[in-house]
Amino acid sequence: MVTIAHVPAAVDAVLAEYFDANRPTLDAIYPAVAEAGDVLADFVLGGGKRVRPTFVFAGWQCGAPTADAADETLALRVGAAIELIQACALIHDDILDRSDTRRGRPTAHRRFETVHVERAFVGDPAHFGVSAAILLGDLALAWADDLVHGIAPGRWTDPRPLPRPVGELWARMRTEVLGGQLLDITNESAADESITAAYRVMEYKTAAYTVARPLQFGAALAGADDALSESLHRIGIDLGIAFQLRDDVLGVFGDPAETGKPSGDDLVEGKRTALLAEGLQRASGPDAELLRANIGRPLSDDDVAAARSVLTDSGALAAVEQQIEDRLDAALDGIDRLPVPASARDDLTWIARRITHRQR
Amino acid sequence: MVTIAHVPAAVDAVLAEYFDANRPTLDAIYPAVAEAGDVLADFVLGGGKRVRPTFVFAGWQCGAPTADAADETLALRVGAAIELIQACALIHDDILDRSDTRRGRPTAHRRFETVHVERAFVGDPAHFGVSAAILLGDLALAWADDLVHGIAPGRWTDPRPLPRPVGELWARMRTEVLGGQLLDITNESAADESITAAYRVMEYKTAAYTVARPLQFGAALAGADDALSESLHRIGIDLGIAFQLRDDVLGVFGDPAETGKPSGDDLVEGKRTALLAEGLQRASGPDAELLRANIGRPLSDDDVAAARSVLTDSGALAAVEQQIEDRLDAALDGIDRLPVPASARDDLTWIARRITHRQR
Repeated sequence: MVTIAHVPAAVDAVLAEYFDANRPTLDAIYPAVAEAGDVLADFVLGGGKRVRPTFVFAGWQCGAPTADAADETLALRVGAAIELIQACALIHDDILDRSDTRRGRPTAHRRFETVHVERAFVGDPAHFGVSAAILLGDLALAWADDLVHGIAPGRWTDPRPLPRPVGELWARMRTEVLGGQLLDITNESAADESITAAYRVMEYKTAAYTVARPLQFGAALAGADDALSESLHRIGIDLGIAFQLRDDVLGVFGDPAETGKPSGDDLVEGKRTALLAEGLQRASGPDAELLRANIGRPLSDDDVAAARSVLTDSGALAAVEQQIEDRLDAALDGIDRLPVPASARDDLTWIARRITHRQR
Repeated sequence: MVTIAHVPAAVDAVLAEYFDANRPTLDAIYPAVAEAGDVLADFVLGGGKRVRPTFVFAGWQCGAPTADAADETLALRVGAAIELIQACALIHDDILDRSDTRRGRPTAHRRFETVHVERAFVGDPAHFGVSAAILLGDLALAWADDLVHGIAPGRWTDPRPLPRPVGELWARMRTEVLGGQLLDITNESAADESITAAYRVMEYKTAAYTVARPLQFGAALAGADDALSESLHRIGIDLGIAFQLRDDVLGVFGDPAETGKPSGDDLVEGKRTALLAEGLQRASGPDAELLRANIGRPLSDDDVAAARSVLTDSGALAAVEQQIEDRLDAALDGIDRLPVPASARDDLTWIARRITHRQR
């Protein structure tokens, strides 16, 4: 019996076993392919908080009133599969963002670029790095689907089929997260200033993918009814949006020592966050122009301070903080009213507070 | 009852229905996401010979001695799903190869680049194009898995689960094709001259993915036994390699008017084909140097003619032509000896000859 705090370690064990089982298959294709597979295994096992598998487990606990009502290993399998989707998302995202490092280590495309240089390959190292990383992300996405269905290209197998309702949620979630990412890059390029668009990205790219669907997966695995599943979806969307809004505030106002990112990083990156959309809508004409001028380009400390002032003085920051409170309160109220064992409610409350940095 | 010549049209109908069913889901995320989905639908429905679905159907006919022994629509569903994998492969491949056109139309990343320019988006149009196309390829890959399992993010559903043995073949095939592609770009960058490496790429990137696994999918759907499945795999690998070798010969010696590609295109692209590996191994020292000097760079007509001479005079071309004959003969012999209805053998022979351009 796994407890919620041990989900990350249990999921890592599933993933490590899966990578090990697939390695001979890659090696049989050619040793160079097994080496690429090792890059994926390193990437996945090298970090990550396993938030999504933890929500799958929390959802499973909500649906399974007694310990033997369902088999928790199926919840761990689905959680591990989402981590492989996440690996694809991060590997491809790092290409899109031209990032050099992730969790303090070189990103996948940079690792392949280094291989190209070290082995004195011919052609453009950067192009090779991106090409190999695109394919590696594809492999992670394909393996996510194999794992969730209990199959593998290698010898690993789990004979239990994925229950149909979970498969349908799985289909929705993958389209939602990819749709949310497509919308995100489109908003950024279109310099979209609408609050609606910013909320849609949060809802699909973050809230559904990170919280709502994982909770529903777990509940469905435990045979929960539609009413419970819908309650968990609502809670998950509120919680996921609170989580993302908190992240957006930290992305502009956060202390680099705590966030690990440069000061005002979201402004420099040109992210179309709800905080920014609120600021552009609430600020006076000249202030809005000032804000617009400080998006999507390198910024001095004074530029960041000026943008922060507009966001504070216009009331945008206060409005977003209020949204965080409201959404989190709604989620916590929803959790309190769930017709599930007290221990399941406690675990869900614990993780809800943790991801939104709230103590009470 | 579909006949083998009508498989492409029948598969197109499945795909069109699937795209239609998913459109409202994309539109609910945001209209811009539905527009991206339309690019995918256009891309998939805009061309392609549906070779892989045709082999799935041929395999199904081998396993189903009577018309009602299995439901052919399941074979069409699996065939359509492979076309979505192929869409991902082509969209991502066009990024890797920096191609501007595919089937006479702009590639996906170029289409998104044009959207960026036409709508006066901010930032780098080329980077936006590549970013959106990476995500669109990911969506195609995710949908391939949904479709093969009979689910969709939208309302479309086919309640029949994918039989377990087909799911296991599906897992192997996706890893094989991605592994083959990873090996292909590694060989190209490493300037690998070994014949073994060239054959491995052909075996996994082309033969297994295009012929062998599709035949086995069909047979497994019709409940074929292991012996028949293994025979079909052997036939598929031989046939797939003959098909790829023929393509390699055309890539160097083909008439641009027939191939639709520039003269000596494979040499310019630096493809590490078996033909090239044979040439480098068989040619004298100076001739091999000449060949090496004419790989992976723009070539004049004289350069192409000189490289062709080395490939012909060294006996490399004759050796590859002999391989094509041997592999195709082995495949056709294997088909003749299959314990399946004569009509299934005839159909398989027909498509085998068609893809290798052989009349007799």
